[in-house]
Parts: sequence; structure tokens; C-alpha cells
Amino acid sequence: MIKIGYLGPAGTFTEEALLYVSHGLEIDPIAFLSVEDVAAAVGANEIGLGVIPIENSIEGSVNATLDMLIFESEVKIVGEIIHQINNCLLIKHGSSIKKIREVFSHPHALAQCRKYISNNLKNAAIRVANSTAEAARLVAETGISTAAIGNRAAADIYGLEVLQEHIEDFKDNETRFALLGNKVPNKTDRDKTSIACFLFHDKPGSLLQMLQEFAFRYINLTKIESRPSKQGLGQYVFLIDMEGYIDDPDISSAIKCLTCKIDKVKFLGSYPRNVKTLSEIKGIL
Amino acid sequence: MIKIGYLGPAGTFTEEALLYVSHGLEIDPIAFLSVEDVAAAVGANEIGLGVIPIENSIEGSVNATLDMLIFESEVKIVGEIIHQINNCLLIKHGSSIKKIREVFSHPHALAQCRKYISNNLKNAAIRVANSTAEAARLVAETGISTAAIGNRAAADIYGLEVLQEHIEDFKDNETRFALLGNKVPNKTDRDKTSIACFLFHDKPGSLLQMLQEFAFRYINLTKIESRPSKQGLGQYVFLIDMEGYIDDPDISSAIKCLTCKIDKVKFLGSYPRNVKTLSEIKGIL
Repeated sequence: MIKIGYLGPAGTFTEEALLYVSHGLEIDPIAFLSVEDVAAAVGANEIGLGVIPIENSIEGSVNATLDMLIFESEVKIVGEIIHQINNCLLIKHGSSIKKIREVFSHPHALAQCRKYISNNLKNAAIRVANSTAEAARLVAETGISTAAIGNRAAADIYGLEVLQEHIEDFKDNETRFALLGNKVPNKTDRDKTSIACFLFHDKPGSLLQMLQEFAFRYINLTKIESRPSKQGLGQYVFLIDMEGYIDDPDISSAIKCLTCKIDKVKFLGSYPRNVKTLSEIKGIL
Repeated sequence: MIKIGYLGPAGTFTEEALLYVSHGLEIDPIAFLSVEDVAAAVGANEIGLGVIPIENSIEGSVNATLDMLIFESEVKIVGEIIHQINNCLLIKHGSSIKKIREVFSHPHALAQCRKYISNNLKNAAIRVANSTAEAARLVAETGISTAAIGNRAAADIYGLEVLQEHIEDFKDNETRFALLGNKVPNKTDRDKTSIACFLFHDKPGSLLQMLQEFAFRYINLTKIESRPSKQGLGQYVFLIDMEGYIDDPDISSAIKCLTCKIDKVKFLGSYPRNVKTLSEIKGIL
């Protein structure tokens, strides 16, 4: 039985995404309290795979995940899960929306529901929690004047009532989760490749020159994101996601040319996109 | 006396940055509890200026600020403050680092000190707070087993001791703060211009085509950042900061050409960079 770590505790959206792709498979899910802990356990082979959130369609990238991949770990992305997020307002039995004076959740979930809160919970103070599951636990431990934003699983675990579903401010609330492993999986017909491009000595037009390597080869970029290099304001590392597999001639040649142009290119993984089940990922276990 | 709003409560790094640039000037500082509230008060002319954080050199952009500027408000950036951040470990008198079992702070400050915490506060649980100042208040209200990460002002306000200074993981911990107003200030010799570029119908190479408008005119871009368009995964708005003033012929022509190429360009402001005092900003009050 394969051990799979996830960003916990039990009752998070990450656990929900893992259970979704491992439906019908025998796995041993293990909760970790940070994305760094999940990656470290994968790196040390204590677990076979890890699952962590990487980007939400409303609130954007998960900085801790990007920084771990760029700066701290040599684990690779081996698969991508895209999972619909259903933010629910969770309350204690016997409470009602009028009684709520404090609303707890993870900062990302609070940001996804910013307008809902200001329209429907005007008199409630916003309280940040380490995870949506912890927010549910805090509500279970306190009085009827508190509410949490989280999923149905957290309501079940902590004995709460789902007062309202899909309270996020925009439709199509989806999160991309990354599966982490130590090997590059086999090529499929729908792979993505992720790299981090370091520009220690930024010159005008450097980003343009980088992008030309891909445009020239008709490589489609699905995402470009900048993160601070941690070396001072104005110095960035660019994360680039592209369609294709690392061994594709165009991609390997684009990366070779990039390596000549910029200070460092770090390969973060080639992996099937939007997997519906773990058995779509071949050659890593 | 000009009323200036800032992201509070009293004792935040934003208040510190405001006091730094208003040294010797008569101002009436007013604390607000969210960046949206600061922007709304500026928009309604309840206050003359606002100050909010926009980007930290370690943890990156403040999403709430970027999204407010892109999607929600018509206020303009009228000045940039760059302020050194000194993250301090704050404890109650009579406590010590060995006694700490919980460490409170704003998620950005916790992220800036991630390594320090895991090396020095191994047995402490991480607790997120709405601001560094609120973290200090929570420590003041609880026992000697808690610590906060915040600034010296918060230690003074809440009667805490500064156990250690500069506990951030990387040197040069700086935050960029945006001054908000309703008019574009007069041109200076060191202006920046910020725009948001909306790509509702993303085509391969769109970003490259955008960047070419600037490269062709030798306009130096100081920052490019992507934010989700909120319309689903894979659709982004690009924030671009460049050197120069909105009326400069090259910049106005680049923006005119961009408007023909992409769906929407939103002007976010032209403003002097890195002001040391509010009196450097002319023509807005």
C-alpha cells in the first residue's frame, strides 16, 4: 500500500483532491502540516508521493509551494490534479448567519470569499487559521457566534452544519494541486513541463529574450509567474509552465538555449496534466 | 492637517512606513483594517492619501492590494515608499525563547521568517494573525508561552520585550508601500508608471507581443507579475511597472499600441519612486 502525504490536517481541500484521484486504489494517506514537510518526506523516501496545492483560480499561486520548488527541494512535480473547490459556510448546530460575530478560515479561502463575507457577514471579524480544517475545529471548540469556511469533510469531522455551499465570489473556483515524487513519469499525450528561470543579473529585455526561445519553437506557455529572488526588490525568478515533455526535441533545445542566456534554469518536472486518477501516472513507483 | 489612512491597526509596518515619510509634517494618521477600506476612503475623499503594502522582497506581492487596484478601485498610485523591515521576536517580560510554544504573526511575516522559526522555535506551533500588531496584542493577552513577530512600535504599544531583531531569513528585507490618491502627481525625474493588461482571450505569444511594445521603445520594465483573471485557471492579468511618466511620448505610444492589441489596459498610476518624504509628491493635494 503506497503512502501518500498531503497538506493536512484531515478535512482540507488537499485531502479531498487526493481522495478524488485515489478512488478505488489502496493508499495510506498521511497528513503533514506544511508543504515543506510533505516535500521533505518525499525527498527522504518516507512516502511514495505527496500532494500539495499550487494555484487557485481566484487567489492565485501558493507562494510556499512555489518557493519550496524553486529554492529548497529537488523533488519533482509528477502529476497535476485540477479540483473544483466548494467553499462552504460551516456553523454549529443551533447557530444562524445572524448570530455570527467571527469567521475563521485559511487566508486563501477568506480571499476567495471576500465579497460574500462583506455582504453577508458585515458584523463578523475575520480570523485567519492555519487551514480550513483547523478553522472548522476552532468553530467546534467555541460558541455559536463563530463560523468557518471549509469543505463538507471538515463539517463531518468536526460535527458542524453546512449552512451554505459555494460561497466563493467567482464561479469556476478551481485549485491546481501538484503531485510530488522523485522520478520523472513516462511521457503521455498531454504533458506539461515546469521550469524556474533565475536572472541574477537582470538586464532590460531579459524576459523578452527568454520568451523568444519558446515562441520561435511554437512552444505554448500555459503560465508565467514571477517570484522574488530573495536577493532584494526588483530581482525575480520566473516560473514557466509549457505544453510538452522534457525529452521533446523543441523543449530540450529551448532549455539548452536558455541555459546559455540566463544564470540558471531549474527543471521542476514533466507530468501529465489534469489527472483524474493516480493510475494515469506511469513509471514512478 | 491632511488625513492619511493606513493598513492598521496601530503598530503595523505600514504605520511605521507612513511615519517615516511624514516625519516633520503635520498629518492625521487613521488606521483601517483592510487595503480595500483604505482605497474606499481615498475614493470617497474621506482621507487625502492612503498607504498600503504592495510587495515584499522575500514574500512577494500582496495579492489583496494587486486585486484591489486591478479589479475594484479607480484610485491611483501616487507615490512609492521603500522601507526596511525589521522583524523582531516579541515576548512577554519574564519569558524566554525556551518557553515559547506558539508564535503569532501575519502570514507574510511568518513566511519571511520561516527558516528562523524552524531552527529556533522547533516546538512552537505557528498561529496566523490578521496583522503583526494584532499578533503582539494576542501575546500581551496570553501567557508567557507565546511570542509574536512584529516591529518595535508594536512592542511599545503592547508592553512586550524585543528578544531578537532582524529574524528574517534573508538580508535586505524591504517592503514597497503604495501611496494612494485620486490624481496623478506632477512629473519628476524618477517616475514609474504601472498598468494592468487584461488578456480575456489568451493566444499563444500574447505576452511576448505585449513585451515587444516596450522593448522596441527601450522602455525599461521594473516588474511583471501575473494575477488570476478570476475567470478560470490559465487566464491572467499582467501587472507591469515601467520607468517613466504617463505623458512621456514613448510610454503613451506603447500604451496606445497595447490597447489595440489586447482586450483592456488599465492605468494604475504614474508616481515618484522611493520617496523619502511626502513633500516629494507634488500637485495632488
